[in-house]
Amino acid sequence: MRAVVLHAPKDLRVEEYALQKPERGEVRVAIKAGGICGSDLHYYNHGGTAAIRLREPMVLGHEIAGVIAEIGEEVKGMAVGTRVAVNPSRACGDCQQCQAGRQNHCVNMHFMGSAMRFPHDQGGFRQSVTIPAVQAIRLEGDTSLEEAAMAEPLAVCLHAARIAGPLLGKRILVTGAGPIGALVTILARLGGARDIVVTDLSTFPLDIAKSCGATRIINVRDEPDALAAYAAGKGHFDLCFEASGSAVALQQALPAMVPQGTVVQLGLGGEFALPINAVITREVRLLGSFRFHHEFVDAVNLLGSGMIDVRPLITAVLPFEEATAAFKLANQRDSALKVQIAF
Amino acid sequence: MRAVVLHAPKDLRVEEYALQKPERGEVRVAIKAGGICGSDLHYYNHGGTAAIRLREPMVLGHEIAGVIAEIGEEVKGMAVGTRVAVNPSRACGDCQQCQAGRQNHCVNMHFMGSAMRFPHDQGGFRQSVTIPAVQAIRLEGDTSLEEAAMAEPLAVCLHAARIAGPLLGKRILVTGAGPIGALVTILARLGGARDIVVTDLSTFPLDIAKSCGATRIINVRDEPDALAAYAAGKGHFDLCFEASGSAVALQQALPAMVPQGTVVQLGLGGEFALPINAVITREVRLLGSFRFHHEFVDAVNLLGSGMIDVRPLITAVLPFEEATAAFKLANQRDSALKVQIAF
Amino acid sequence: MRAVVLHAPKDLRVEEYALQKPERGEVRVAIKAGGICGSDLHYYNHGGTAAIRLREPMVLGHEIAGVIAEIGEEVKGMAVGTRVAVNPSRACGDCQQCQAGRQNHCVNMHFMGSAMRFPHDQGGFRQSVTIPAVQAIRLEGDTSLEEAAMAEPLAVCLHAARIAGPLLGKRILVTGAGPIGALVTILARLGGARDIVVTDLSTFPLDIAKSCGATRIINVRDEPDALAAYAAGKGHFDLCFEASGSAVALQQALPAMVPQGTVVQLGLGGEFALPINAVITREVRLLGSFRFHHEFVDAVNLLGSGMIDVRPLITAVLPFEEATAAFKLANQRDSALKVQIAF
Amino acid sequence: MRAVVLHAPKDLRVEEYALQKPERGEVRVAIKAGGICGSDLHYYNHGGTAAIRLREPMVLGHEIAGVIAEIGEEVKGMAVGTRVAVNPSRACGDCQQCQAGRQNHCVNMHFMGSAMRFPHDQGGFRQSVTIPAVQAIRLEGDTSLEEAAMAEPLAVCLHAARIAGPLLGKRILVTGAGPIGALVTILARLGGARDIVVTDLSTFPLDIAKSCGATRIINVRDEPDALAAYAAGKGHFDLCFEASGSAVALQQALPAMVPQGTVVQLGLGGEFALPINAVITREVRLLGSFRFHHEFVDAVNLLGSGMIDVRPLITAVLPFEEATAAFKLANQRDSALKVQIAF
Repeated sequence: MRAVVLHAPKDLRVEEYALQKPERGEVRVAIKAGGICGSDLHYYNHGGTAAIRLREPMVLGHEIAGVIAEIGEEVKGMAVGTRVAVNPSRACGDCQQCQAGRQNHCVNMHFMGSAMRFPHDQGGFRQSVTIPAVQAIRLEGDTSLEEAAMAEPLAVCLHAARIAGPLLGKRILVTGAGPIGALVTILARLGGARDIVVTDLSTFPLDIAKSCGATRIINVRDEPDALAAYAAGKGHFDLCFEASGSAVALQQALPAMVPQGTVVQLGLGGEFALPINAVITREVRLLGSFRFHHEFVDAVNLLGSGMIDVRPLITAVLPFEEATAAFKLANQRDSALKVQIAF
Repeated sequence: MRAVVLHAPKDLRVEEYALQKPERGEVRVAIKAGGICGSDLHYYNHGGTAAIRLREPMVLGHEIAGVIAEIGEEVKGMAVGTRVAVNPSRACGDCQQCQAGRQNHCVNMHFMGSAMRFPHDQGGFRQSVTIPAVQAIRLEGDTSLEEAAMAEPLAVCLHAARIAGPLLGKRILVTGAGPIGALVTILARLGGARDIVVTDLSTFPLDIAKSCGATRIINVRDEPDALAAYAAGKGHFDLCFEASGSAVALQQALPAMVPQGTVVQLGLGGEFALPINAVITREVRLLGSFRFHHEFVDAVNLLGSGMIDVRPLITAVLPFEEATAAFKLANQRDSALKVQIAF
Repeated sequence: MRAVVLHAPKDLRVEEYALQKPERGEVRVAIKAGGICGSDLHYYNHGGTAAIRLREPMVLGHEIAGVIAEIGEEVKGMAVGTRVAVNPSRACGDCQQCQAGRQNHCVNMHFMGSAMRFPHDQGGFRQSVTIPAVQAIRLEGDTSLEEAAMAEPLAVCLHAARIAGPLLGKRILVTGAGPIGALVTILARLGGARDIVVTDLSTFPLDIAKSCGATRIINVRDEPDALAAYAAGKGHFDLCFEASGSAVALQQALPAMVPQGTVVQLGLGGEFALPINAVITREVRLLGSFRFHHEFVDAVNLLGSGMIDVRPLITAVLPFEEATAAFKLANQRDSALKVQIAF
Repeated sequence: MRAVVLHAPKDLRVEEYALQKPERGEVRVAIKAGGICGSDLHYYNHGGTAAIRLREPMVLGHEIAGVIAEIGEEVKGMAVGTRVAVNPSRACGDCQQCQAGRQNHCVNMHFMGSAMRFPHDQGGFRQSVTIPAVQAIRLEGDTSLEEAAMAEPLAVCLHAARIAGPLLGKRILVTGAGPIGALVTILARLGGARDIVVTDLSTFPLDIAKSCGATRIINVRDEPDALAAYAAGKGHFDLCFEASGSAVALQQALPAMVPQGTVVQLGLGGEFALPINAVITREVRLLGSFRFHHEFVDAVNLLGSGMIDVRPLITAVLPFEEATAAFKLANQRDSALKVQIAF
């Protein structure tokens, strides 16, 4: 079989890769769809981040879905042909974090397509992946596998929504209209938010956010002061999902929050100049949100239920032979949101 | 009667001030003790802050306690001679914030000794103050009026503790050992914290923090990297009260927090360079804490109960005729913590 | 003008009633629609409850909406003709409960159409009502005044939803399909619940619940053991709104809850035989929900937004001259849900 | 070696029992102290409860502490002689409950000395117990092993305290002064509660509760209406730990709670006649509390820290050869609180 392997920045190769037979408790999933995530792009563009560097060839990808192709011993409730989304994260279950119910902070975490450990955890952009059966989550209904490959970022957003608390009737600001911002918009709409204002520097993703349920979209490149109007009096927004990783976005959001409003920080970034007095005098609750755990199952169930439609986010699907073209396209925020690879 | 009136930065005068007779529902309190707060010092040193400027002579002071001297009509449950702490804050009760139970964010707030409104809300450093009876909170037990004058900063800390959540068995970091840091230390001890590590740049307040229940004190001027040891693995502290207003303190605290740990931000400051990825990957909860409301009554009750001892914080008491000397002393963090004025 | 006045059980009279001119800060509202509530029926059928008895003639009604007809001095932002829902509850703002943000527990509460105090608080089933302007909440959009008269029970349900916490993705059981059960169903649907199972002893309200968004309706008269299937394993429901006031409903709900599931108790009743070990071993959270406060404004805003449709609940509207017929009809759970009176 | 084995109600035998060698990852603990719990007494007196019956001889006991006597392969951080408390509960880590961080509801739970499963999980009243090393929690400091054997009920109480939320400044009612009630009293004191009122039907345990920090003890056999005074106005208690399993206790507690007060239900019982309107109109939060998980480690740490003193609870220690006498004594609530067995 073949896999999409990164050898060095910009050096992505589609090459032969050994197929693994499932052992006891494992299944082999024939991958059908894989979405390119921001961290995949970081590896492709720069070989990782400051802290995490590619040190050996690594299969990229951790947003994947497919069909059960082969089943190991002692696996129950699975059949060849079952459609599944693959949970790329595997917490140890034993460490202090796992024992405390914080598996997303597992100190022994294996996460597909991550260079954090060495040898790296190989990713899911390959024709088949062999994993413990518990990581293959059955997809109900007639939702497509492309949509199922959105389960991972959706799980990230369900985790953020859980941290955020009730959404019903809330006035919500979403800063950053990438895939995370768009999915958060979908959840805010599903959860009965009253207003959903989405900001970005680009029109293309904002139009998608609009179709996802935003009640107002703001291109802050064109209207850099648009949020100031929401800062009048004691602010406007009960809740902000910061999904841009931009310091300016957070700086503009803070004075627009109502007292005791909540900002869930999703967008990774660098050093943010934070006006600390705004945090204090508004009693803002700034809450980091990182990965997910049981929300992955929830995400697959939600996709299977048909209650939400993530198809507007998938702006392109390319065959895996054209993986490099897919990554180049994914770099274009003006014309691509979620680019997927078909296997 | 006489009052301590600020006319301009460094121009503090003890001068004659009109005594007000209590009207219906009011009482006149003969003030006995008044504590100098950081905001009083800001007015004295600089005429206010960037946003809030002294624009007319103003009596300073909002940490005051005394004895009922005169009672207006329709006041129940008060007698001349009743010992009380004075709540310097008066929320309107009608605005949207008050209606939502967020009276500390009242848009019509009157706060004694504040130049936020014009005419300014005159403060409490005077021989008697006439206020609505609901702002005079009876002090039970044999706690002194000096201690009772700590009710206001204690209320600030009780509010912060409420935001922080349970303290029992928690590992707590307190950054900044001023009066707020010391009172938070007292509450952490009272609340059954497991460890209480207090940091400051000065030995004098740290020694007081030690006597308030700190299990370890760290002079971060001498040991600038001492907190790094707590950042090993997944961090150490469940909870941090940031009471210094220093960006460095927050920067050093973040990596020392356990996943999903809580930082309550009390210390006002400027623009903090915040490593946003630390907030995200640790899922830190950074929560602003601002003033208080019903916690003032709780503070007076707690002081009256004898369950805590705030006397180590009161490092000097000067007669009001020497108000300027008292303010000069309060500026010396190396030799003064809470300086009070006696009336 | 005329009013619907209860003189004794079953003795409801439409009679002349003095019109009040609005004083300073008040408005006179020409009532257009009034809904009959369960407590109105209690007064009509029995003269009250065990604890609260009719002791003088009282205008019934507290679910009312109308049009501003006359405006007192110093009222801002209102014009003759403005469409409003009337908040029947007036908390004092001063008592300990109000100060703590628990205005629904105000010890000096005035609630329209309630015999709790003497003289009774006269109700809103009259051609016009004069009230403090803050109790008249402007209705936006083109929602009808009949719908606006649902604001009070909707506020009760928004309060219950706030107590319940997040609804997104939750499996929800609603026991009792009266107006409260139906409104809770609407909110559960709006809030993105995954399943909404509604039970009742009667088919008529269940069919309405179905149209409000129930994913399954169960007539527990026909299928008394239907909930047992949900008790298998560790239960099924994350959340239950108990809106029937029936002990059997709660008894059947408890084993169907997942561990740490939440039951919000809305339905008033008598003495419930509670299997306490089910509460303990499932760690059920049984939470009482009583009235509302700021949720009334939220309810009017939600009705005005057009995000929900409460019209299926309003099964009959009778002219006020036929008030007795309206009350008789409201007693028929097999053919009436919410009966309204038109003025 | 020998063990305390129950063959039938009242038929407790001290008999020879096979010693198990520790396998990989296991340790053998030489038990020194074991406390008799209410469930042990149920087995001894009645052969179990209605639902859970003794079906084969079973070693009783799950409150045990001792010294590491033998160490299996691959066990780190343990040495022969290390003093430990034994966690009697072993969650599977894999089921849906464990994955959701609710390990105390594990569907595959093994709990020492429990007849819930068949074959039964043998208990800890024996000269040595062989267990996975993670169940042996090191005891720091110079706390005795008798005290360490209180870790299990203390963990139950720490779990309840976590459910209860903040304790600082709270007015707390504890109904039932058995070992659980006494430990909750210790935690309430440690956590800075303002008042701690403890009720029971017997003077002996109440006197112990007094020494644990109760601010008032009430023998409700002598003063059956004493709690009524606390029900005046809007109630008195913020928090109640119901540790008696008596319906009357809960019935009397409800009206004594402040609005939105919390009752944590710990005491197992039968069918409680619950005045549901009190739950609603006071908006009481009635929260079940069941077992513990990571709180066991917290309990051992807390005992080791010396911050609390549980010795007043241990009213008798008998040698294991006199196990039957120990059980008979434990049945006497008038003269015994926690009876321990020495090995």
